[in-house]
Amino acid sequence: MELHRTSVRVRYAETDQMGVVYHANYYVWMEVARVELCDSLGFRYRDMEKDGVMMAVIESTCRYVGAARFDDTVVIESRVAEVNSRSVLFAYDLSVDGRPIASGTTRHLYLNSEFRPIRLPARYHALFGLK
Amino acid sequence: MELHRTSVRVRYAETDQMGVVYHANYYVWMEVARVELCDSLGFRYRDMEKDGVMMAVIESTCRYVGAARFDDTVVIESRVAEVNSRSVLFAYDLSVDGRPIASGTTRHLYLNSEFRPIRLPARYHALFGLK
Amino acid sequence: MELHRTSVRVRYAETDQMGVVYHANYYVWMEVARVELCDSLGFRYRDMEKDGVMMAVIESTCRYVGAARFDDTVVIESRVAEVNSRSVLFAYDLSVDGRPIASGTTRHLYLNSEFRPIRLPARYHALFGLK
Amino acid sequence: MELHRTSVRVRYAETDQMGVVYHANYYVWMEVARVELCDSLGFRYRDMEKDGVMMAVIESTCRYVGAARFDDTVVIESRVAEVNSRSVLFAYDLSVDGRPIASGTTRHLYLNSEFRPIRLPARYHALFGLK
Repeated sequence: MELHRTSVRVRYAETDQMGVVYHANYYVWMEVARVELCDSLGFRYRDMEKDGVMMAVIESTCRYVGAARFDDTVVIESRVAEVNSRSVLFAYDLSVDGRPIASGTTRHLYLNSEFRPIRLPARYHALFGLK
Repeated sequence: MELHRTSVRVRYAETDQMGVVYHANYYVWMEVARVELCDSLGFRYRDMEKDGVMMAVIESTCRYVGAARFDDTVVIESRVAEVNSRSVLFAYDLSVDGRPIASGTTRHLYLNSEFRPIRLPARYHALFGLK
Repeated sequence: MELHRTSVRVRYAETDQMGVVYHANYYVWMEVARVELCDSLGFRYRDMEKDGVMMAVIESTCRYVGAARFDDTVVIESRVAEVNSRSVLFAYDLSVDGRPIASGTTRHLYLNSEFRPIRLPARYHALFGLK
Repeated sequence: MELHRTSVRVRYAETDQMGVVYHANYYVWMEVARVELCDSLGFRYRDMEKDGVMMAVIESTCRYVGAARFDDTVVIESRVAEVNSRSVLFAYDLSVDGRPIASGTTRHLYLNSEFRPIRLPARYHALFGLK
């Protein structure tokens, strides 16, 4: 399965008084990575929502092993770790200058525009590597 | 015109590496104060949106004269500074322990649910002190 | 072990275009709850940091089972789920009007002001229920 | 005076339930632009802080004339609008696909590491275009 690499430059707004990035902001970076992973898989997440399919987060986890600081370049490797017709699990590894700082996951349920769980429409199966 | 007083306790997430609150977060507190000011004027902003009237921000300003720190209690005094049938200006004074830290304003245009500017419906006139 | 209950009123800033609260913001509410839990245990987290003891997040998890919307009152029940001389695990249950919306955890390492792991100083043992 | 152009891709986290970007987030983008403007002027803001010079925000303003939506590419043109030995004013113009969405300013005071106002050290004068 494809592994996508993206990077973000740490914003001042993302730091806290400990002098490092506030832990919840790692999840925002995972979102940035996930959107770019979708690009690399062949669709824009924005278009998927317009197409009536949302991916609602039902679980998120992160283990922090190092700190990111203002102006660091954080590299995020993301991939589809598990996928079926009901849900998808993305996994992320974050590092700064080759030094791991965190790894995380987000699990998503496919919803229609009325927020009801749906099966992933067939037109997305190949994009997600679902047979 | 009524002056409303509310307070927020500073969250760790709101600080930055300078050890004080990141400047953009003051605008979020102004939103908290504005929503409570609406309560005190006699309506919930949530209900106003459900009623098809949104107040979109078209201008925001803030002058910072002191810092807020983690766990400080920030008192926000808010009021309707100007109002007419097209827009409204809210003004805010922020302090910690009686010490001023900032003053700001937000100007809003009334929009309908298609994001078109509208005149404030008559049923809100008295609430805003509009004759 | 003591269970603490706090509540937050959902801010507009915390919502996203799905019309519900963005998932990462649940972790900010857990921080709000944790700080109040510390209050109820007998110390202010701010003072603990000034005393040279930080609680750095090394793991965070959240399972989302329902949505929170703008202006909802979110009740957060928090507790110390595990504690030893090296780390502590907090657990949180979030609900709106008695309806569960999420449950989560954060695990923290005690650090000194040079960001080195330390044993929890004895003066905090009783507060955390550590024998 | 040099005009710098940078861009950001709108994050889902930055939107609100109106389906557009929450107004306070424009100030975070101004920070992104300002940091890059410093790069283009010949120094990294991070290094300036390590060098004992902070630029604390004492005023911020923004006029909103259009909306930014999830996944839009927002172009931010920034420049030093006024500068003297005590403070500096940055100005920003934001657009999406050539359509203006906002313009703003931030005024900053130079502070030393004890948060005291200082004169801009001579080594930065040329970089800011200060004679």
